[in-house]
Amino acid sequence: MTLDGLARAYAAGTSPASVLRGVLARIAARGDDHVWISVRGEAELTSEAEAVAARWPDPASRPPLFGVPYAVKDNIDVAGLPTTAACPAFAYRPAADAALVARLRAAGAICVGKANLDQFATGLSGTRSPYGACESPLLPGLISGGSSSGSAVAVAAGLVPFSIGTDTAGSGRVPAALCGIVGLKPSVGLVSTLGVVPACASLDCPSVFAASVADASAVLAVIAGYEPADPWSRRLPVPGPPASPAPPGSAPLPRLGVPRDPEFHGDAAAAAAFAGAVRLIGAAAAAGPAAVDIADFIAAGDLLYGGPWVAERLAAVGDFAAAHPDQVHPVTREVLERGRGYSAADAFRGIHRLAGLRAATRAVWEVVDVLVVPTVPTTFTVTQMLADPVRRNMLLGHYTTFGNLLDLCALAIPAGFTAAGRPHGVTLLAPAGSDALLAGTAARLEPLLGAGRPLSR
Amino acid sequence: MTLDGLARAYAAGTSPASVLRGVLARIAARGDDHVWISVRGEAELTSEAEAVAARWPDPASRPPLFGVPYAVKDNIDVAGLPTTAACPAFAYRPAADAALVARLRAAGAICVGKANLDQFATGLSGTRSPYGACESPLLPGLISGGSSSGSAVAVAAGLVPFSIGTDTAGSGRVPAALCGIVGLKPSVGLVSTLGVVPACASLDCPSVFAASVADASAVLAVIAGYEPADPWSRRLPVPGPPASPAPPGSAPLPRLGVPRDPEFHGDAAAAAAFAGAVRLIGAAAAAGPAAVDIADFIAAGDLLYGGPWVAERLAAVGDFAAAHPDQVHPVTREVLERGRGYSAADAFRGIHRLAGLRAATRAVWEVVDVLVVPTVPTTFTVTQMLADPVRRNMLLGHYTTFGNLLDLCALAIPAGFTAAGRPHGVTLLAPAGSDALLAGTAARLEPLLGAGRPLSR
Repeated sequence: MTLDGLARAYAAGTSPASVLRGVLARIAARGDDHVWISVRGEAELTSEAEAVAARWPDPASRPPLFGVPYAVKDNIDVAGLPTTAACPAFAYRPAADAALVARLRAAGAICVGKANLDQFATGLSGTRSPYGACESPLLPGLISGGSSSGSAVAVAAGLVPFSIGTDTAGSGRVPAALCGIVGLKPSVGLVSTLGVVPACASLDCPSVFAASVADASAVLAVIAGYEPADPWSRRLPVPGPPASPAPPGSAPLPRLGVPRDPEFHGDAAAAAAFAGAVRLIGAAAAAGPAAVDIADFIAAGDLLYGGPWVAERLAAVGDFAAAHPDQVHPVTREVLERGRGYSAADAFRGIHRLAGLRAATRAVWEVVDVLVVPTVPTTFTVTQMLADPVRRNMLLGHYTTFGNLLDLCALAIPAGFTAAGRPHGVTLLAPAGSDALLAGTAARLEPLLGAGRPLSR
Repeated sequence: MTLDGLARAYAAGTSPASVLRGVLARIAARGDDHVWISVRGEAELTSEAEAVAARWPDPASRPPLFGVPYAVKDNIDVAGLPTTAACPAFAYRPAADAALVARLRAAGAICVGKANLDQFATGLSGTRSPYGACESPLLPGLISGGSSSGSAVAVAAGLVPFSIGTDTAGSGRVPAALCGIVGLKPSVGLVSTLGVVPACASLDCPSVFAASVADASAVLAVIAGYEPADPWSRRLPVPGPPASPAPPGSAPLPRLGVPRDPEFHGDAAAAAAFAGAVRLIGAAAAAGPAAVDIADFIAAGDLLYGGPWVAERLAAVGDFAAAHPDQVHPVTREVLERGRGYSAADAFRGIHRLAGLRAATRAVWEVVDVLVVPTVPTTFTVTQMLADPVRRNMLLGHYTTFGNLLDLCALAIPAGFTAAGRPHGVTLLAPAGSDALLAGTAARLEPLLGAGRPLSR
């Protein structure tokens, strides 16, 4: 189900209500897959679908997401549905839509329900939720990745054409890699976080999952834009809806960089898959990708869970966790508790260290426009993840955690499968404000890397 | 001694060495005024002055600050002189000039010596130094203001035509008001802090004192500019050397705002002086200044000493202070100790609160280009300040402390004297990057407000 396909179906007379009934049927067919925390009822969805149809009767003047069903991570407010952040005791009923949900509603999209997540968006595994662990639809027993676990699976399993997640440390990219879909993490401040439960408020970023770069870009064009009431909103270039990608050879690709010594934590199959992806990219580019030392990027990422930023989560949910210790997932509680060990002087030392690392990485952006990294260094099964939940979670974030700290935008795209049959993906990164550049580049690399069609398995 | 006057003297054949000897004579004539922590010897200065003369023999191709003597606050490195930050036990001999000192040297300026300051640039009073308290040259017994106390007095007493200070909470503006001179605090990141002892590293800002806006602007044009090696340096518009101010009536002044209910802590004479200044400004502007609610600005400022930012100072000198408690000024120690009471979660809560306040103040900048405030709400004698050093220091920063937290640039200009015979000054503020706008506006207001010539006394 693509946005184009859906638009064609609507133009041919299909009704939004019938599309929404189909979505509910597919959800029901999957049974208890832990993807959803709440799903709206058929009567309610039918009524909203009919209202959308009635509001825009003329096919020629329909908004860009007319009748498009989507899922929302359950740390984002949708009026009429509870927001749980995957913690039942934390749940509240928001009076209003989050800013991005309001934009989606105005563009004709229809929210089907709220998707599961690692509690309080703390985690990259998809296994830290009282609503159950999510699995990747690509391989039985494989983690979905997180924290936007349900949102990613909802798209990867073909339930909805797009979904909304959030991304602080990689939550919008890691599950895209594990589930074989596109994960678009815009520049921080490009999409408002008004109505989103904070994780690290200064770093949080709504994100988009879709089956293709074009669909993700079309959704970004709707939800991007300055929100004066949002302290974290920034006046950044708003990318338009996706253009057709330039035909191969028509214009040079931007200057690409890849890590000089990429880390795969011993996963030789992942290493080979990434090397293969780099070869395919290199063959398409005028010059081979530059080999870049990314040690300063990795060091910046280490500050998020291995430094004072873990305390930023306490500013949002620390009081709740202290008052309701038994309602907080044990691993999440352990992570939050670690934040209590840092002083304000530690926090400022971390901010100073980050400023130094950010300055050090400026040199990379003078020779490279887009950095291409593996999205995850390796993959884990649910069983593996539950056996060593903190360390393996940290390993998953190797190539994502630095993204928001260093004020980069990112786009994760699938790159087929490793020889071991695990999904593989690459992420494109560039300084904040380069969202359109990333989308254009990713749209050209996407067919090369086998998006949507396994390279081998 | 103005830059223009000095340039004319040099063009007429005066030698830099004779000018420097004159500076030393004036310094000696003042005796033990606590202005200097170190002054270079006559032989050394004569030799440097002769080297400057030999390097640029052709009067037609001399750099902008050829042979101009200046003072540097002693928390800024000058090769060959110790940096003490007003703490003898902290002193070190820097191997290299601070970035801004190197720029001044390349522009022909000659550093006469290192000026006294509130220890570790912590304070606004000029009384927190083991090298003694500084007094304003305008009135016996009046504080000079701080922390850039010696730098301000060196200019106000006519010892040098300009000096360099630093400004985190108002240290480049408060002493300008107390001493009746111009204090230019650029946008944070416009002038590099490489080689400056950090106070709050993320907020610190070198500043310029001079007798006129034109002279301060000429110095800024030399020291401003991006420094890739400095994590805090930013690519901001670099204002050029000062143009002649537009003749009155030739162009409208930018949209000016003033506080709706300005606070003077009971100083009726200061209130009347500010009202008089606003009347003079209003008469010159096309429309009277808009009355602005500045409560959110003040609330932001309160976070610096009354919130977690006090812990940022610990990140710089906390370890030193813990190891050498007896070498730290008792008031400074008390301020630093307060920082130990804040957790990292407190720091992030403060950062979030500041983001909210910054967003709230955006509305002001949609209707006002330049905000005009009293530089200080009231003034104190040295005796008064020593009797209540923490509270009165905080009062002094009412209109300055928010400046860097809210990412504003500022220019303090004299506005004559109050009916009680105390100096009065106003500060122009605008969002970062508006340095040229501030300089142009201040140059037009300066003659109206009686810069350099007391309105009454």
